Amino acid sequence: MVVDPGVISSGAGSPLDRAMMQRCLTLAQRAAGQTAPNPLVGSVVVAAGEVVGEGFHPGAGQPHAEVFALAAAGDRAQGATVYVNLEPCNHQGRTPPCTEALIRAGVATVVVGMIDPDPRVSGSGVDRLRQAGIEVVVGVEEPACQTLNEAFCYRVTQGRPWGIFKYAMTLDGKIATTTGQSAWITAPPARQAVHQLRSTCDAVIVGGTTVRRDNPQLTTHGLTAHNPRRVVMSRTLDLPWDAHLWDTAIAPTLVFTTPSANPPLQDHLRSGGVEVVTLETVTPGAVMGQLYDRGALSVLWECGGTLGAAAIAAGAVQKLWAFVAPKLIGGVTAPGPVGDLGLTHMNQAVGLERISWTSIGPDLLMQGYVSGSMGQ
Amino acid sequence: MVVDPGVISSGAGSPLDRAMMQRCLTLAQRAAGQTAPNPLVGSVVVAAGEVVGEGFHPGAGQPHAEVFALAAAGDRAQGATVYVNLEPCNHQGRTPPCTEALIRAGVATVVVGMIDPDPRVSGSGVDRLRQAGIEVVVGVEEPACQTLNEAFCYRVTQGRPWGIFKYAMTLDGKIATTTGQSAWITAPPARQAVHQLRSTCDAVIVGGTTVRRDNPQLTTHGLTAHNPRRVVMSRTLDLPWDAHLWDTAIAPTLVFTTPSANPPLQDHLRSGGVEVVTLETVTPGAVMGQLYDRGALSVLWECGGTLGAAAIAAGAVQKLWAFVAPKLIGGVTAPGPVGDLGLTHMNQAVGLERISWTSIGPDLLMQGYVSGSMGQ
Repeated sequence: MVVDPGVISSGAGSPLDRAMMQRCLTLAQRAAGQTAPNPLVGSVVVAAGEVVGEGFHPGAGQPHAEVFALAAAGDRAQGATVYVNLEPCNHQGRTPPCTEALIRAGVATVVVGMIDPDPRVSGSGVDRLRQAGIEVVVGVEEPACQTLNEAFCYRVTQGRPWGIFKYAMTLDGKIATTTGQSAWITAPPARQAVHQLRSTCDAVIVGGTTVRRDNPQLTTHGLTAHNPRRVVMSRTLDLPWDAHLWDTAIAPTLVFTTPSANPPLQDHLRSGGVEVVTLETVTPGAVMGQLYDRGALSVLWECGGTLGAAAIAAGAVQKLWAFVAPKLIGGVTAPGPVGDLGLTHMNQAVGLERISWTSIGPDLLMQGYVSGSMGQ
Repeated sequence: MVVDPGVISSGAGSPLDRAMMQRCLTLAQRAAGQTAPNPLVGSVVVAAGEVVGEGFHPGAGQPHAEVFALAAAGDRAQGATVYVNLEPCNHQGRTPPCTEALIRAGVATVVVGMIDPDPRVSGSGVDRLRQAGIEVVVGVEEPACQTLNEAFCYRVTQGRPWGIFKYAMTLDGKIATTTGQSAWITAPPARQAVHQLRSTCDAVIVGGTTVRRDNPQLTTHGLTAHNPRRVVMSRTLDLPWDAHLWDTAIAPTLVFTTPSANPPLQDHLRSGGVEVVTLETVTPGAVMGQLYDRGALSVLWECGGTLGAAAIAAGAVQKLWAFVAPKLIGGVTAPGPVGDLGLTHMNQAVGLERISWTSIGPDLLMQGYVSGSMGQ
């Protein structure tokens, strides 16, 4: 359910350039959710109008996309055009700089979707290629490239992970009945879309109430091999000793709590392989900082309204995924998706921008960006 | 904002037949909101492939659509084909039967969109025409014809007016802030769509809380000449002495209350031209019965969640118009659109069918039919 970058079309480049850049984006997406803290990058080598090599970056510590594409092209890279959705790196990291690989391969042209957003290195890759006599075109399908790596861009420019808040509600704005019962609001296609979304994220956060009430798994339910890290925020650690999230065979679990909270359960969790981190105050900002330090790009908030409101208020939500089911459940005390934000006048409402609405089975998915969230 | 009947296409009839029936529907809609308790009907006379007469029913007590169309056609009606979206009447009402007018005019063919839904007369108009040697085709664009007159069909088959529940909420399901402030949730295009909707309805209902809090006008705000009757349900009549709704110069107002409620205000309202009706219990069912007796086809519930839930529970809502604004306001105690329905399990939710989603400015409009509402 990653937004199809193909729907955004830039005017730059020839039709071939744009088609090849779209191909890069498609290749890049194959590793969605698996590259953190690195970006999603795909690359295509074209010689004499023919694709002679393709590649994508499969994950941190592994070669970059250009390296795979050049390897596939072999000698045909000589004089060829290389497409890549993100500016080639020009620094020695865990792998050698891609600029040198491109120069060594003797390519004639490099078409770049977007410049590296990291202000410390931004533009240096293009400069190095041009110094070596390679023609460089920049900005082909740039909006789609920005969207594909919006989480990466946010991380490197803001020093925080990208936050997505997902919820499912009835058409009268309820995420559960008055008794807290919530299975199911949406139909299977929407729930599968959530599994797909999880597969593209590095962490999924819930609060203690969700663990107690729903005992969720927060996995992709086999849709993909990659599962995000499951994160629980619980100040009191007043949680059950048995829960799906404590089974770390399928995916890692990370619990944030306070130092003195429920020591026996802390011990029990640690002995079962759950990582328990204690913080003096368990806030969305502190948790996002911890997840940043662990390399997270995209963090999915799948919590209830209280924690969701705290995350929004803390600026830890940049994007919204709101599923709306065509049904009414009613209930004055039935919970809604967002708790107290401290707002009393409608003109203070948190605005959403770049809205899109999509039918998923009988349900509707609204996606939007929190206004002023410093997203693209 | 009446659903464009053109989007539903029946296979019956030739392309010309379907185009002419669509024209009938367009003509019929000119009187939307003004024909109660009569249906919306348009008629076209075609002779030698040319439209020679058109008409629509402008309102109760006035001639039917066929009469206008035949008058416009004059002598050219002889041997012509007449299109009409609803079966011509065969009984003497406030106007003579249309069947006799068609026979007298010597038409050769009558193409009918749908049979009269009233089981007492259903089919008799077609029978009479066939007995007189006129060819009759039935069912051209029938789904669109049914939708156009869904309120009329419901009224004559169920003995109650058609109820529409409209609300506007934020994407987190709130119709106001925690302090009750609600101006504005949606943008001007959505609000104008509501004015348009009102112009097609015979009555608009609110409760006392809405009068006290919002002091609404409930008019079309000049969009059309027709304003619906404004209806207030207030058991206690604990209402302000001055309110926009008490100004009956622009549109009539009808107040339902209990016999002993606030006698001075009852006198004040009556002296100002407001109709005050006392009922032992002021329920949605009783009020809909009263509005049925006054000839209403379509009744628009523009009330808050408490009365809205009561209307839904009473089966007084057949269709939903839910505007969703792309913003978050939060607030655990901020009101939602639907109050208590007494449901505790999500599988008890009131389902909505035949859903459609439409963008209106920055907002979204969801329209749907309450499942099992006996609508089309």
